[in-house]
Amino acid sequence: MSTLFGEGQRIVNVGLQSFAESIVAGGGKAVQVDWTPPAGGDRVAGWSLAQLLDHPEVERANEKAYAAYLAAQPVLVGIGVAGKQLPGMEARMILHAGPPIDWADMCGPMQGAVIGAIVYEGWASDVDSARRLAEGGTIVFEPAHHHAAVGPMAGVISPSMPVWVIENAGGSNRAYSNLNEGLGKVLRFGANSGEVIKRLRWMADVLAPALSAALAKLGPLELKPLIAQALQMGDEVHNRNAAASSLFLKRIIPAALHSGFDAAAIADAVTFIAGNDHFFLNLSMAACKAMLDAAHGVKGSSFVTAMSRNGVRFGVRLSGYRFAVV
Amino acid sequence: MSTLFGEGQRIVNVGLQSFAESIVAGGGKAVQVDWTPPAGGDRVAGWSLAQLLDHPEVERANEKAYAAYLAAQPVLVGIGVAGKQLPGMEARMILHAGPPIDWADMCGPMQGAVIGAIVYEGWASDVDSARRLAEGGTIVFEPAHHHAAVGPMAGVISPSMPVWVIENAGGSNRAYSNLNEGLGKVLRFGANSGEVIKRLRWMADVLAPALSAALAKLGPLELKPLIAQALQMGDEVHNRNAAASSLFLKRIIPAALHSGFDAAAIADAVTFIAGNDHFFLNLSMAACKAMLDAAHGVKGSSFVTAMSRNGVRFGVRLSGYRFAVV
Repeated sequence: MSTLFGEGQRIVNVGLQSFAESIVAGGGKAVQVDWTPPAGGDRVAGWSLAQLLDHPEVERANEKAYAAYLAAQPVLVGIGVAGKQLPGMEARMILHAGPPIDWADMCGPMQGAVIGAIVYEGWASDVDSARRLAEGGTIVFEPAHHHAAVGPMAGVISPSMPVWVIENAGGSNRAYSNLNEGLGKVLRFGANSGEVIKRLRWMADVLAPALSAALAKLGPLELKPLIAQALQMGDEVHNRNAAASSLFLKRIIPAALHSGFDAAAIADAVTFIAGNDHFFLNLSMAACKAMLDAAHGVKGSSFVTAMSRNGVRFGVRLSGYRFAVV
Repeated sequence: MSTLFGEGQRIVNVGLQSFAESIVAGGGKAVQVDWTPPAGGDRVAGWSLAQLLDHPEVERANEKAYAAYLAAQPVLVGIGVAGKQLPGMEARMILHAGPPIDWADMCGPMQGAVIGAIVYEGWASDVDSARRLAEGGTIVFEPAHHHAAVGPMAGVISPSMPVWVIENAGGSNRAYSNLNEGLGKVLRFGANSGEVIKRLRWMADVLAPALSAALAKLGPLELKPLIAQALQMGDEVHNRNAAASSLFLKRIIPAALHSGFDAAAIADAVTFIAGNDHFFLNLSMAACKAMLDAAHGVKGSSFVTAMSRNGVRFGVRLSGYRFAVV
């Protein structure tokens, strides 16, 4: 084919899109870069932002935040219930991943998870009425990060869900996470069928009390050494948690078996954990949350203390600022 | 210092040692290589040996042996008792690591382990009378390798010890190993005090039956996939078995807890395994033994099917030959 442009030529266009369109219309290949100048083109604001690079006050603040991050020692101290443990948690509140978002703007999987949580809580008897309830405006939706909590994927946490309680050694701050359900049809991917709700109830009624008894017997469990060993064994403790889950199981089992807790419940709990290589994920997330929260609130610091998405928007929180949504 | 030799010069001497001695006497530095010609200097035998390199019959035999090695699929099928399971095991026989060795020639740790095994078996009431019994010539000492078995370090296995039973898929051959005692004062390092004997008895009376019940519930356990995963997680499944031990524990525990076996025994067994990162070692050794035995006995093959030391001598066994001791 004859074109105005040589074979193999490719053009990257920044700025007015019509330039790229003309090239394509002429038979060439062009990629349009989606770019805007810093600070939305505001020169004064852009210059102010640029001044912050290597700014001595920011550097000092960042050193302080980073030191607090490194000094943090997340310890698993037990299991609680979201409605009782999480700061600011309310009776009809559902937490979610990422920055704030209204029901109508949520992506499908997050809406599915919220609907599942409503059924799980018993606020509605089925998914249709749960959806109507969610649309009705009486349920409060807030980011888990605003309540010292994290959860994978949809990150949905409702008041009666069990949560890991992670505390930085010294008791300076706490972080929380829900318990990992495994793979397949699970709430965090937006599934809300009967088996999902049934598993969530079993997790609250059997798994959490069994783990709670085991942790009471074991005592506080330092998570950094366990994570360090798992990293050496090939985990990145996010999408690969096989080593960490095994190491955690190995730590918890002797205590569980000597806790005096109902043997059948322990057996079921252990079987569930042994079959879920992702079980440690929620612990690693909460441990990171505890460490990063320790670095939060240092005036002037640009240290990133949270990055989180809700499926629609992505949020970044800096230590010296409340949060930013992009 | 003034010498006959330049600074930094170092001499490696092969052959008559007096050359090296003269250099050292003259103020120089010389290393004497402990070397002898092949076949002990016998030119005809040496030439015959050299002919075997790349010999088509040996190559064909080695391909056959290697294929059998690769095709082997070691599966853990249960736990037995050495005296009943091991081929050729006799009532007053004690197996040991490495090539054949008489009591008088054994190194201290192996003698210590043998003495411990005699006390454990109840053939003598204390270590002094056990030593006299071992010296007396009524106990038969044979290499574990001659009875399809392996064991770490001293490798001592006596008739009433529990053994892992590993079978190659298809049932072509079996290999056995004792159970790992952990670190510290243990029989395999030559310790034979009361706590060592007590632990061995607990292993036979509690650990082995608990594991046996768990394995009966679990069914045959393929060891290659477990070892492959452990290798990816940083183990070499000899001196580093942290991953393999954890993965094994994760596989065995749900079955153990649902086996109906005495809960206290299961709890103690699991606690013991969870506290011993070397627990899998004996399983990996027996798995390798099963795989290498599958390659043994191919006429003309120089494929190495066993390498083993007893602390004094080192033995190498080739597929087409009985064994060689160097």
